[in-house]
Amino acid sequence: MKRRQFIRMAGLGAAGAATVASPAIAQSMPEIRWRLTSSFPKSLDTIYGATDLFAKAVAEATDNKFQIQVFAAGEIVPALQALDAASNGTVEMAQTAGYYYVGKDPTFAIGTSMPFGLNSRMQTAWLHSGGGAELFNDFLKNYNLIAFAAGNTGCQMGGWFRKEIKEVADLNGLKMRIGGIAGNVLAKIGVVPQQVGAGDIYASLEKGTVDAAEFVGPYDDEKLGFQKVAKYYYYPGFWDGGPTIHHMVNIAKWEQLPPAYKSLIKTASSMANEAMQARYDAFNPPAIKRLVAGGTQLRAFSPAILDASLKAANDLYAEIAAKNPNFKKLYDHMVAFRADQYAWWQVAEFSYDNYMIRSRPRG
Amino acid sequence: MKRRQFIRMAGLGAAGAATVASPAIAQSMPEIRWRLTSSFPKSLDTIYGATDLFAKAVAEATDNKFQIQVFAAGEIVPALQALDAASNGTVEMAQTAGYYYVGKDPTFAIGTSMPFGLNSRMQTAWLHSGGGAELFNDFLKNYNLIAFAAGNTGCQMGGWFRKEIKEVADLNGLKMRIGGIAGNVLAKIGVVPQQVGAGDIYASLEKGTVDAAEFVGPYDDEKLGFQKVAKYYYYPGFWDGGPTIHHMVNIAKWEQLPPAYKSLIKTASSMANEAMQARYDAFNPPAIKRLVAGGTQLRAFSPAILDASLKAANDLYAEIAAKNPNFKKLYDHMVAFRADQYAWWQVAEFSYDNYMIRSRPRG
Repeated sequence: MKRRQFIRMAGLGAAGAATVASPAIAQSMPEIRWRLTSSFPKSLDTIYGATDLFAKAVAEATDNKFQIQVFAAGEIVPALQALDAASNGTVEMAQTAGYYYVGKDPTFAIGTSMPFGLNSRMQTAWLHSGGGAELFNDFLKNYNLIAFAAGNTGCQMGGWFRKEIKEVADLNGLKMRIGGIAGNVLAKIGVVPQQVGAGDIYASLEKGTVDAAEFVGPYDDEKLGFQKVAKYYYYPGFWDGGPTIHHMVNIAKWEQLPPAYKSLIKTASSMANEAMQARYDAFNPPAIKRLVAGGTQLRAFSPAILDASLKAANDLYAEIAAKNPNFKKLYDHMVAFRADQYAWWQVAEFSYDNYMIRSRPRG
Repeated sequence: MKRRQFIRMAGLGAAGAATVASPAIAQSMPEIRWRLTSSFPKSLDTIYGATDLFAKAVAEATDNKFQIQVFAAGEIVPALQALDAASNGTVEMAQTAGYYYVGKDPTFAIGTSMPFGLNSRMQTAWLHSGGGAELFNDFLKNYNLIAFAAGNTGCQMGGWFRKEIKEVADLNGLKMRIGGIAGNVLAKIGVVPQQVGAGDIYASLEKGTVDAAEFVGPYDDEKLGFQKVAKYYYYPGFWDGGPTIHHMVNIAKWEQLPPAYKSLIKTASSMANEAMQARYDAFNPPAIKRLVAGGTQLRAFSPAILDASLKAANDLYAEIAAKNPNFKKLYDHMVAFRADQYAWWQVAEFSYDNYMIRSRPRG
């Protein structure tokens, strides 16, 4: 072969290889930019931070070919319009909590958390391996959405109260910042639920516009300074036993993704689900120590208040289920799962925690 | 421009583009095949299955460019040589539990689980956001390894006993299949620990070669049929409050990976960490129902046995810490973390679970 001929054939070979390889690469790993709108502010480094980690992981694993830009609440749409923005395609996806949208349909809450629902590990197990995600996503098709669990706060606190609450009667007429189904449950036993944005809770408590307010737990609450304007910090937040934050993706946008990116969104959402819970679990203990050292009075809700709230919740669920087949379907499934969960939980987990709590002073 | 000249230049352009683009692609997303050896058999779909999901996720997100082939225990090396195989580069990585290697150094156990250590969420929080992973990985450098949490079983059961164990004295001379530090702890209060491979536990219990055996929990134990040869099923497995299974990667192989693949291994290990716990949480409840329906007798370890075991554990830890600075460093860190964890855990989480367990019969 002449040298000139060799060079031309080698060139052809290289060009041929490029022609075969390039389209495959272009199809499977295209350059894509998405926008994600969050229901949360950047200041919540636990919640917002988990989705930041998610977006970072997606970008890293694709050498920045798939970039998801995360916008805080209010940057594109307000906090409680995140789901709509993903649903109507304004953005490709949202980080939000289903239970913010019970005004559309109370079924949304079951994907997140229900008063007296599952704890954090159980909610994850139900969604992941208990059939919960399939049911929730069937429901979300009505809103052009597919959702992936992407964080959990763990059991929250019952909130900040300016006065002690001992009897159910003490709740009568009490103006409390609490929303969604939890507000509906407490309304049945006398509470007057108030809608107050996170940024306005402090001023409302200070002025006495509200008598009580629930937010999240020690780490987040301390940052907003509630300990300065309310003395009593009640537990547990029985309406938030283990709320799941979801990534909700517009289905049409989802279907346009190559399989590699779909897989990566699932995997990185799972990572966020772990990260958010781990951060809360690591950051809450020092925060509650600081709060108690600063004078915050911890109080448990009395058994009478818990019992009255449980009855109110069960009454409410029966009323909703009677007229909403979607709700009934998901609720019945979750309740059956919960019964088995707590039957098992009390054996190993609870008895272990119980012993560890009792023996703590002995080191 | 003449047609011939144009074609040549276009060809050059394409070749040029390929020349520029290909090396970049080759560097960032090269074709890589790794082998992962597991300490677990395929039959444990919970544990082994989580790493299967991990490998699948890595392959999917890279369009099969990065393939990690998972080998069950014994296929490349025996179960308890998985760490050595990753350490010496026989394989690139392993799925294993640090506490299998306490013969090398008891410090290994702190990355997994210690008797009276952290529960599942706490262990994840310690490793993820509490400084635990950094300490564990500092230690693992001595073995050419870097580790990523990749699964947790939750609190395990205390195992199967052929006779009831009521007093500490009942443990005297009891031959029990239990290993590692847990075996050392129980030996201090009379148990005679036995090394028995998972596949031989059933026969050993049946023949009476051992009087008791611990394995994992209802879902895994039921598959091995222990309920047919031992009547009493004790709880909690206080030596396995929340053991973390790790992916352990040979550091030299790790350093050769492009950043995208490093990031993906971390992200997909987190996914496995979530998946294993979710599967155990979903699958254990039906299993314990079946076991109890079939005649298995559930028994709680008595407070006296727990107290004697706690004292034995603390004595053992003091002995090890006195002569092993690595152990002391990680142990002291974990113990400080644990104290804050349980101080907080008893507030919201435990009181919520407590109410949910108490109110269960009322629906």
